[in-house]
Amino acid sequence: MILTVTLNAALDITYRTASLVPRSSHRVSEVSERPGGKGVNVARVLSDLGHETVATGFLGGRTGDDVRQLLARLSPRTVDAFVEIEGTTRRTLAVADEKSGDTTQFNEPGPVVSAAEWGAFTATYERLLDGAQAVALCGSLPPGLHVGAYAELVRLARTAGVSVLLDTSGEPLRRGVAARPDIVKPNADELAALTGSREPARAGRDARRRGARSVIASLGPDGILATTPDGSWRARPPAAARGNPTGAGDSAVAGLLSALAEGMAWPDRLRRAVALSMATVLAPAAGEFDAAAYEEVLPRVTVESAA
Amino acid sequence: MILTVTLNAALDITYRTASLVPRSSHRVSEVSERPGGKGVNVARVLSDLGHETVATGFLGGRTGDDVRQLLARLSPRTVDAFVEIEGTTRRTLAVADEKSGDTTQFNEPGPVVSAAEWGAFTATYERLLDGAQAVALCGSLPPGLHVGAYAELVRLARTAGVSVLLDTSGEPLRRGVAARPDIVKPNADELAALTGSREPARAGRDARRRGARSVIASLGPDGILATTPDGSWRARPPAAARGNPTGAGDSAVAGLLSALAEGMAWPDRLRRAVALSMATVLAPAAGEFDAAAYEEVLPRVTVESAA
Repeated sequence: MILTVTLNAALDITYRTASLVPRSSHRVSEVSERPGGKGVNVARVLSDLGHETVATGFLGGRTGDDVRQLLARLSPRTVDAFVEIEGTTRRTLAVADEKSGDTTQFNEPGPVVSAAEWGAFTATYERLLDGAQAVALCGSLPPGLHVGAYAELVRLARTAGVSVLLDTSGEPLRRGVAARPDIVKPNADELAALTGSREPARAGRDARRRGARSVIASLGPDGILATTPDGSWRARPPAAARGNPTGAGDSAVAGLLSALAEGMAWPDRLRRAVALSMATVLAPAAGEFDAAAYEEVLPRVTVESAA
Repeated sequence: MILTVTLNAALDITYRTASLVPRSSHRVSEVSERPGGKGVNVARVLSDLGHETVATGFLGGRTGDDVRQLLARLSPRTVDAFVEIEGTTRRTLAVADEKSGDTTQFNEPGPVVSAAEWGAFTATYERLLDGAQAVALCGSLPPGLHVGAYAELVRLARTAGVSVLLDTSGEPLRRGVAARPDIVKPNADELAALTGSREPARAGRDARRRGARSVIASLGPDGILATTPDGSWRARPPAAARGNPTGAGDSAVAGLLSALAEGMAWPDRLRRAVALSMATVLAPAAGEFDAAAYEEVLPRVTVESAA
């Protein structure tokens, strides 16, 4: 089983409307809703790949109920192990231009999580680690949680002997890296913010010195640079993909962890991560991947040693 | 008892955020929600004025539940007689600039109402008319309702001998006027669209010829022009009010109907409508009125014959 943690889950809403003009009134032609938060996206892809997947984190209020129901409908094999909180799960709103597809994003702050709720969560998390092959810790922290929350979860996973991947940013990433996770998956900006270097190879080595065992830097359309104890690799998609990049990084996380759980070596893990990323960009709905595109792209991903 | 009808009720959401920049991402600093739809606003003001008030219309889904709960909390004396529907009540979103207060509006289309649901509603409506002194029919029609829906409700009120006010726009207003409501309350644009004239006195007379017994044209900061069988009047606020005009027209409707129910003559009805409108513009929250401002403004509203 693979466990995903989403501490700041969301109900992702998309409005389709004519071009956005500030200070005017807009008719929304179409409303769509999906379960959101990076760890939730990772769980959906893992389930679609056939992995036994458990999703935990916090959900609360009516929007939390909406997320639960949408997750059950869209990803029926994902086990819902979310901890109920007093506060209300946040919404995110993407306003998409009907013609150009350009989106304008609004992110609510998220519910305040109490110390008692954090205690209930860590107890659930420790119970779920018993039986997990790997765990993904993904996304921002909701208000109320201490900045070292991910570091605490990394340490608990290490104590339980479960491989742990951390995908977050800013100070929670910095603290989390110091707790020695097996994998971190920053994008170029997050890696630069962590290390002070915009040169990915140098920054990857620096992030390893700070505590991460392996650093998988996602470089958008340029693929992935992996810096690991077993070597360094550069994995590249066969072509630039046009489409919606939302969730591409989460699919890469699902690719890395599923391949790890299947006992694959790094080059094959990276191949899968890049192919899933690209198949996600090509899928019409944000946060889903195009299964046919995935099968087609997978053998065409190039992986070369970057040592 | 005064009855209000809101066929396309809404959950009104306001986001406060830094200036809106299309195609960028925004952190929402504050989220507020209130029960919305013009008839709901009218009901809240009527209840605050001490009138026994019943609110009906359609509500459904989780957002419908949210509207019910918010209405019960914010206006506990308003009796909730909404008819439950299969569809989900729409949301409206106002994105307000933290500094300037400028807002950008997004309106969801609303749930499709079935013929069976419309039948259930008209049965409820006829039952509620028995015992009502007046009824306000307010706002847009949700998808699925025929364009003559308001005309049908006007005729049912007239058959029941209940004074009926219609506040809508476009074709539903045109059809509704032909069914001979006691009062219509168009703004300048709605009146011009109905009659083809932007000259309010002429347009008011034209709207009367089309079937409205009295025409109360709301002219924003310029007050009200009333064209009635008893004469014509111009009512003006003592000064231009700065603030949020959302709901000012709904407060005017509540002022007209409450004064009618109290047996007041036209000049006093208009005085109350203008004072409540202004007190609504001055209130910090959209759709509420400042009670102290209302008391202060009321004696300073000027009403003169416009015959």
